Amino acid sequence: MTVADIASWLKGELVGDGTREITRVAKIEEAGSADLTFLSNPRYEQHVRRTGAVAILVSRTFDIAKASAPPSLAFIRVDDPYLAFLEVLKRLTPSLDPFGKGIHATAVISPTATLGTGVDIGAYAVIGDGARIGGGTRIAEGCVVGTMAEIGGDCRLFPHVTIYHQCRVGNRVTIHAGTVIGSDGFGFAPKPDGAYEKIPQLGIVVIEDDVEIGSNCSIDRATMGETLIMKGVKLDNLIQVAHNVVIGENTVIAAQTGISGSTKLGKNLMVAGQVGFAGHLEVADRTVIMAQSGIPESITEPGKTYFGYPAKERNRAFRIEAVIRSLPELAREVASLTRRMDEVLKKLESKS
Amino acid sequence: MTVADIASWLKGELVGDGTREITRVAKIEEAGSADLTFLSNPRYEQHVRRTGAVAILVSRTFDIAKASAPPSLAFIRVDDPYLAFLEVLKRLTPSLDPFGKGIHATAVISPTATLGTGVDIGAYAVIGDGARIGGGTRIAEGCVVGTMAEIGGDCRLFPHVTIYHQCRVGNRVTIHAGTVIGSDGFGFAPKPDGAYEKIPQLGIVVIEDDVEIGSNCSIDRATMGETLIMKGVKLDNLIQVAHNVVIGENTVIAAQTGISGSTKLGKNLMVAGQVGFAGHLEVADRTVIMAQSGIPESITEPGKTYFGYPAKERNRAFRIEAVIRSLPELAREVASLTRRMDEVLKKLESKS
Amino acid sequence: MTVADIASWLKGELVGDGTREITRVAKIEEAGSADLTFLSNPRYEQHVRRTGAVAILVSRTFDIAKASAPPSLAFIRVDDPYLAFLEVLKRLTPSLDPFGKGIHATAVISPTATLGTGVDIGAYAVIGDGARIGGGTRIAEGCVVGTMAEIGGDCRLFPHVTIYHQCRVGNRVTIHAGTVIGSDGFGFAPKPDGAYEKIPQLGIVVIEDDVEIGSNCSIDRATMGETLIMKGVKLDNLIQVAHNVVIGENTVIAAQTGISGSTKLGKNLMVAGQVGFAGHLEVADRTVIMAQSGIPESITEPGKTYFGYPAKERNRAFRIEAVIRSLPELAREVASLTRRMDEVLKKLESKS
Repeated sequence: MTVADIASWLKGELVGDGTREITRVAKIEEAGSADLTFLSNPRYEQHVRRTGAVAILVSRTFDIAKASAPPSLAFIRVDDPYLAFLEVLKRLTPSLDPFGKGIHATAVISPTATLGTGVDIGAYAVIGDGARIGGGTRIAEGCVVGTMAEIGGDCRLFPHVTIYHQCRVGNRVTIHAGTVIGSDGFGFAPKPDGAYEKIPQLGIVVIEDDVEIGSNCSIDRATMGETLIMKGVKLDNLIQVAHNVVIGENTVIAAQTGISGSTKLGKNLMVAGQVGFAGHLEVADRTVIMAQSGIPESITEPGKTYFGYPAKERNRAFRIEAVIRSLPELAREVASLTRRMDEVLKKLESKS
Repeated sequence: MTVADIASWLKGELVGDGTREITRVAKIEEAGSADLTFLSNPRYEQHVRRTGAVAILVSRTFDIAKASAPPSLAFIRVDDPYLAFLEVLKRLTPSLDPFGKGIHATAVISPTATLGTGVDIGAYAVIGDGARIGGGTRIAEGCVVGTMAEIGGDCRLFPHVTIYHQCRVGNRVTIHAGTVIGSDGFGFAPKPDGAYEKIPQLGIVVIEDDVEIGSNCSIDRATMGETLIMKGVKLDNLIQVAHNVVIGENTVIAAQTGISGSTKLGKNLMVAGQVGFAGHLEVADRTVIMAQSGIPESITEPGKTYFGYPAKERNRAFRIEAVIRSLPELAREVASLTRRMDEVLKKLESKS
Repeated sequence: MTVADIASWLKGELVGDGTREITRVAKIEEAGSADLTFLSNPRYEQHVRRTGAVAILVSRTFDIAKASAPPSLAFIRVDDPYLAFLEVLKRLTPSLDPFGKGIHATAVISPTATLGTGVDIGAYAVIGDGARIGGGTRIAEGCVVGTMAEIGGDCRLFPHVTIYHQCRVGNRVTIHAGTVIGSDGFGFAPKPDGAYEKIPQLGIVVIEDDVEIGSNCSIDRATMGETLIMKGVKLDNLIQVAHNVVIGENTVIAAQTGISGSTKLGKNLMVAGQVGFAGHLEVADRTVIMAQSGIPESITEPGKTYFGYPAKERNRAFRIEAVIRSLPELAREVASLTRRMDEVLKKLESKS
C-alpha cells in the first residue's frame, strides 16, 4: 500500500508525498524506510525530527509546521492516531489463523445441540445436550461446552476452555486456553461436628457481548441467580471471580486479581494485577485500583484511585508510604525527644 | 409439597397452617407467596414481621409469640434452620446433572484399569494403566487419570482434571475443572555454574474423603512420601499446594492462597483468599487467617485470628493499622515536638 | 549396589567398609541399616555420630577423624554430597514412567507436522499444521500444540498443556499439566466511548533449553517480537508471565508470582511466591525477592535482597517492619511527649 492508499483507507488527510510504499508499522523511535509510525503521546513529539519513518499518523490538530520533521516525512491526519495505527497494523500483518476450519471429525456434538452457520469446532471438543452455539463462533481443540450452555455468535474459545452446564456467553467473546466458566461457588455451611455441608450452587454465569477473558481464569457460577460479566469487560489471566459477583461494563482487570463473592464492581474500572476484593462490596464506576491492593470495604465515590493493603485513596496512601519509608528515623527522633524531655524536666526541677 | 410435608420430612415441629403449597425457597427479605424461608442469624429477626413467605424455618428455641409475624406465616422448628433450608433447597431445585451416564465410547480406558460399579466416564477421558476407580464415581470429559492412580467411590471430577500417576483420591471427593493433582514439587539444587539440577519428586498426593477442590488449582506431589489433604478439607479455586504440605481435617481455604513446601496446617482452619504461607511451618488448629496475609512463621496457639503482611494477631494488627492510617499526622506531630523542644531549650538556656 | 559400587560410580573416595549393600537413600536423621545418606549442611554434622546409615556422602575436605562416627559407617568423599545423593536417589528409585510409549492411535497429527525419532504422543493430543517436534520428546494426553509451533528434543509436556500457534520451545524443557504458552498479551486501547479496542498480539513466546514450568501457568505471547524465557529458568505453578517479558538464564520463580508486561528479569534471580513485578522494569542479576513483595521500579544493583510492598532492600525493610510492629507504643510515646511538652511550656510560662 502507498501512503496515499493508507490515508484514503483511514479517511485521513494526507500532507506530503503519498507515493511511497508502506510494508510495515513501527514505533516512532524504531521506524525505518518502509514504515508507518504514529504520534499519540506528546512526550514523543521530539522524535518526529529524527524519525526514519516514511509516514506518520498524527492528530487533526497537530502543528506540522512546528515539528521540524525531515522533508521526506509524510503526515496523515486522523482522529485518533493510535487506533488508526492499530488498524494499519492488523491490515499489514498476515496474522495466522489459529483455528481450524469446519467441524473436526472427532468433535463430539450432542444431537440436541444447535449450531449456527459457519461454526468451527476443533478436534476432541465436546458440545453437550441442548447447548447452543451462535454463527461464526470458533471453538478450539479440547473445549467442553456443557449441557444447555449457550454461546453467542463470532466468539473464539481457545483450547481446553470449560463452559459448565447452563452458563451463557454473549457475542464476540474471546476466552483463552484453560479458563473455566461456571465451576461451583465456594459455599459451605459449618455442621456441629466441625465438618461442612455443601451449599448447592444452583445459579449460572452470564457473560455479555465483547468480553475477553485470558487463560486459566476461574469464574464461578452463582449460588442462586447469576454471576455477571457485563459488556466489554476485559480480564487478564489467572483471575478469580467468585459466585454472584457482578463486573460492570468496560471494566478492565489485570492478572491474578481475585473478587470475592457477591461483590459488585462498577463500569470502567481499571484494576491492576494481584488485587483482592473482599465479598459483598460495591465499587463505584471509574475507580482505579493499583497493583496488589486489598479492598476491604465499598467505594462509593466514582473515579478515585486506591493503593495499599488495606487500600487507601492514592495520595493519602503515598503520603503514608513516605512516612513508612522513614520510620526508623522517626522512631529515633521520638527516642531522642524522650531523652531531651527527661533532661528538660530535670533542669526545670533543679531550678524550682 | 405442603408445609406439613416439609415439616414432617425435616422431622421439624409445625406451628400454624400446614396445608399451603411450597414450590421455592428464598431469603427472608425476598420470599413471596410460594416460598419457604429461614431465620438463622438473629440480625434478620426484624424481617419476620414483614416477610411474604408461606413458611419459615426457625430454631427449636425461637420465641414465636414475640415475633409479631403475619398470621398466615407458618413456623417449622428444626435443630439448624440453615442446614434444613439447604436440604429443602436441594430437594426443590431440579438441578441439572452435568455428568453423562455410562462410559462414553471415546473414553480410553487401560485394560489394566479397574472400575467399580456405576462409574460414569465422559468423552475423551483417559484412564491409565493400573488405575482404580471406585463405584459411583463420575469422571467428566477430557479428564486424565494417570498410571496407577486411585480414585475412591462417589467422586466427581469435572472436565480437564489431571490426576498424575500414583496419586490417591478418597471417597466423595469433588474436583473442579482444570485442577492438577500431583505435578512435580518445585525442587532444584544449585550447581556450581549457576544452573540447577532437578531434585526428583518421587512422592505422591493423597486426598482423603469428603474433600472438595475448586477449579484450576495445583497440588504438587511430595519429594518423598505424601502431600496430604485430609478429610473434609474444602479448597477454592487457583490454590497452590506445594510438595509435602499437610492440610488438616475440615480446613477451609479461599481462592488464590498458596502454601509453601512442607508446611503443616492444622484442623478447622479458616483461611481467606490470596494468603501466603512460608515453607516448613506448623499452624495450630482453628487458626483464622484474613485475606492477603503472609504467614512467615509457625502459629502454635490454636484458635487465634491473624492479619497482615507479615501477619500479626488480629487485634494487634488492627491497632497497628490504625496508627499507619494516621502516620502523616504522627510525623507532623513529631516534627512539631522537635521544633518546640528546640524552642524550650533555647528559652532554658537564655534563662540560665 | 554395594557401597564400593556407589563410590566407584560417583568417582568418589571410599573410606571404610565397601562390602555392604545399599538399597535406599534417606536423610541423615532418618537413615537406617540399608541406607545411604549425605552431609551437606554443617548444621547436620552432629547427626553423623548417631546415624544408622550404612554409608554417608561427605565433601572432599570433611574431617572424618573428628566426626566420632559409628565404626561401621562408611564414608564416600565426593565434590558435592547433595548432588551426588540426588544421582543415587534417581538410580535407586524405580520411578514410574508416566508417559505412554509411541504415538497413540487417537492422537491427531497434522500431515504437515514433523516429528523427530522416538517421539511419544498420548491419547487425544493434537499436533497442528506445520508444527515440529524434536526427537525423544514426550507429549502427554490431551496436549494441544498449535499451528507452526516448534518443540525441541527430549521435552516432556504433561496432560492438557496448550502451546499456541508459532510459539517455540527449546530442548529438554518440562511443562506441567494445564500450563498455557502463548495466550494473547493483555493489550487494549481505550476508545472515546469508554469501550476498548483490542491491540493485536502478533508476537510469540520463545522458551529456551532446560527450562521447567509448573502446572497451570500462563505465559502470554508478545505484542510484537517475543516473550522470552531463557535457558535454565525454573517456574513453579500458577505463574503469570505477561507479553514481552524477558526472564534471564537460571532465574528461579516460586508459585503465583506475576510479571507485568515488558519487564526484563536478569540472570540467576531467586523470586519467592506471590511476588508482583510492575511493567517495563529491569531487574539486575542475582536479585533475591522475598515472598509477596511488590516491585514497583527497576533494580539496578545486582545481588541484593528485597522485601515488602512496595519492596525495599531487605535490611531496611526489616528495620521498618520492626518499627511497624511497635507503632501503637510509638504513637503512645508521641502522645505522652505532647502532653509533657504542654506541661513544660506551662511551667516555663508561669516562671517568666
